[in-house]
Amino acid sequence: MRVTLAIDCMGGDHGPSVTVPASLSFLEANADAAIVLVGRSADIEAHLGTAAARFGERLRVRHAAEVVAMDESPAAAVKRKKDSSMRVAIDLVKAGEVQACVSAGNTGALMATAHFVLRGLPGIDRPALVSALPTLRGHTHMLDLGASTDSKPEHLLQFAIMGATLVAAIEHCDRPTVGLLNIGAEAIKGNQVVKQAGELLRASGLNFVGNVEGDDIYKGDVDVIVCDGFVGNVALKTSEGLARMVRQFLREEFTRGPLRKIAAAFAWPALAAFQKRVDPSRYNGATLLGLRGVVVKSHGSADRLGFATAIERAADEVRNDVLARIGARLGTPAEAA
Amino acid sequence: MRVTLAIDCMGGDHGPSVTVPASLSFLEANADAAIVLVGRSADIEAHLGTAAARFGERLRVRHAAEVVAMDESPAAAVKRKKDSSMRVAIDLVKAGEVQACVSAGNTGALMATAHFVLRGLPGIDRPALVSALPTLRGHTHMLDLGASTDSKPEHLLQFAIMGATLVAAIEHCDRPTVGLLNIGAEAIKGNQVVKQAGELLRASGLNFVGNVEGDDIYKGDVDVIVCDGFVGNVALKTSEGLARMVRQFLREEFTRGPLRKIAAAFAWPALAAFQKRVDPSRYNGATLLGLRGVVVKSHGSADRLGFATAIERAADEVRNDVLARIGARLGTPAEAA
Repeated sequence: MRVTLAIDCMGGDHGPSVTVPASLSFLEANADAAIVLVGRSADIEAHLGTAAARFGERLRVRHAAEVVAMDESPAAAVKRKKDSSMRVAIDLVKAGEVQACVSAGNTGALMATAHFVLRGLPGIDRPALVSALPTLRGHTHMLDLGASTDSKPEHLLQFAIMGATLVAAIEHCDRPTVGLLNIGAEAIKGNQVVKQAGELLRASGLNFVGNVEGDDIYKGDVDVIVCDGFVGNVALKTSEGLARMVRQFLREEFTRGPLRKIAAAFAWPALAAFQKRVDPSRYNGATLLGLRGVVVKSHGSADRLGFATAIERAADEVRNDVLARIGARLGTPAEAA
Repeated sequence: MRVTLAIDCMGGDHGPSVTVPASLSFLEANADAAIVLVGRSADIEAHLGTAAARFGERLRVRHAAEVVAMDESPAAAVKRKKDSSMRVAIDLVKAGEVQACVSAGNTGALMATAHFVLRGLPGIDRPALVSALPTLRGHTHMLDLGASTDSKPEHLLQFAIMGATLVAAIEHCDRPTVGLLNIGAEAIKGNQVVKQAGELLRASGLNFVGNVEGDDIYKGDVDVIVCDGFVGNVALKTSEGLARMVRQFLREEFTRGPLRKIAAAFAWPALAAFQKRVDPSRYNGATLLGLRGVVVKSHGSADRLGFATAIERAADEVRNDVLARIGARLGTPAEAA
């Protein structure tokens, strides 16, 4: 099966200067894949140059005149930007012309537009953002990273089902372990919603291993970590902020005077290997799970490698039939899957 | 004024082997301070050796026969361990024999016992755990880090008042800036409680600067960050877990074969300076704010330097009259302050 993806070329901090080259790298590495580049055709073609020709029908450009601004309100984007690159990319998923779309644009607008156009899967009340995170032992998947807030226990159960199905599909493992993000055995054991969610999870038939705490996320002991979107978003962004501080401190310490700079040269292979292990672009791409279509959100600041990783992620989910599997797990067919 | 502190010597992963030497270092550095070491006198004296004599009446030992286990239920500790080192240390605060106590013991038991013995300040519904965190520009203070969950908007307002008063007192700054931890301008802007707390904070007369996101914590743009205890605990522990992973990756990369080990020797001054800047022991010590007495919780795994930092923190709060100031801010005298 050929995987065909729509790319919102105009989204993100860098727009086509990142999204177009990342799409080309993806096509080079994936001979079974096709891409539709969506956005202002003049801007896209300026970044395509002569490269386009060698992919033939695997690469198409679909003009969309409008762009959703990074600070635009989600409601305004849905109502008024019907010819935006973001909207047209999602429309292509809805129409079945592509199997997934990838955007680095305005998160709120992407979630609202995707929900409006694609609608939710039956049995799922709310979509959830899920992403892989690096751990000491490989990686884990966490959701919800901020698609919604004020989750009820049954929403957390739905997140767990979707997350476990996703991981089973793309990691080819049978019964991924599921942990519930909570605050320690020694403190008051969680809020009301989490306590009730724990009961639902224990009765769910999932491979539920109980509570995990914040410091367990990066241990990598569980495959799927479930939490409310407010909590997950804070955990993710706190990690991003801390990682940025660590990089900054390392940079400062290795450039403090000439001796330190010489030391940095000696230390370079180790430092580069370290940087690579914690490079956020290797984990870029959060999937909006729970809709009748695959939508992957790239970080707005992603570079080429990062955006290409998000495209790979979308392709992986299509190849492994994630949507149909979630539909089957919920006992209902995923219509647009 | 002489500052006198009670130390729960039996708490934490290491007990008197850490708490006693840390207390001695503190006494050496603070000639105006006195300490009461609380716990099994035989254990304490085994770690005191001959050092005790040189501090004269500034150092006393108060025997307490019982120990609260790290996994004991808070309710059981309150009900049944009336002669525990933790309980006796808090009783000394209540009796006015000391002005503050420090413990590395069971967090839940410490919070429950402190609340039971000392009672809350008038005008404060719930105590909150507050700690300093390192940032790119120095440090910030965040609360609640897990004393309670399911906060209501008025609780978050009380946390903000206590946090701002604490920071004004110990940092000698007039109107510390206060931020509300939230999830981004671009996504759905926060849950119901946070939205309402924002309104209360805007009307509070505090120097409220609006929402901050998870990745803003380590930027250091605001002095006080306010959040629900569940969210704060997840953010803190997620940071601890990520920092541990970073240290582990650095260690692995600098010991991978003989060349890397030579590089590590060259890089040592820079690496050591980096480690020092992110050393958690420099920020050890979370204060349980909102009670009629100063109670500081050390991390259970703290080393000597870390535990001494927690003792310094308690002394600082006593010297700067934090309790009386919070009482005054709330319009009521802090009785046991």
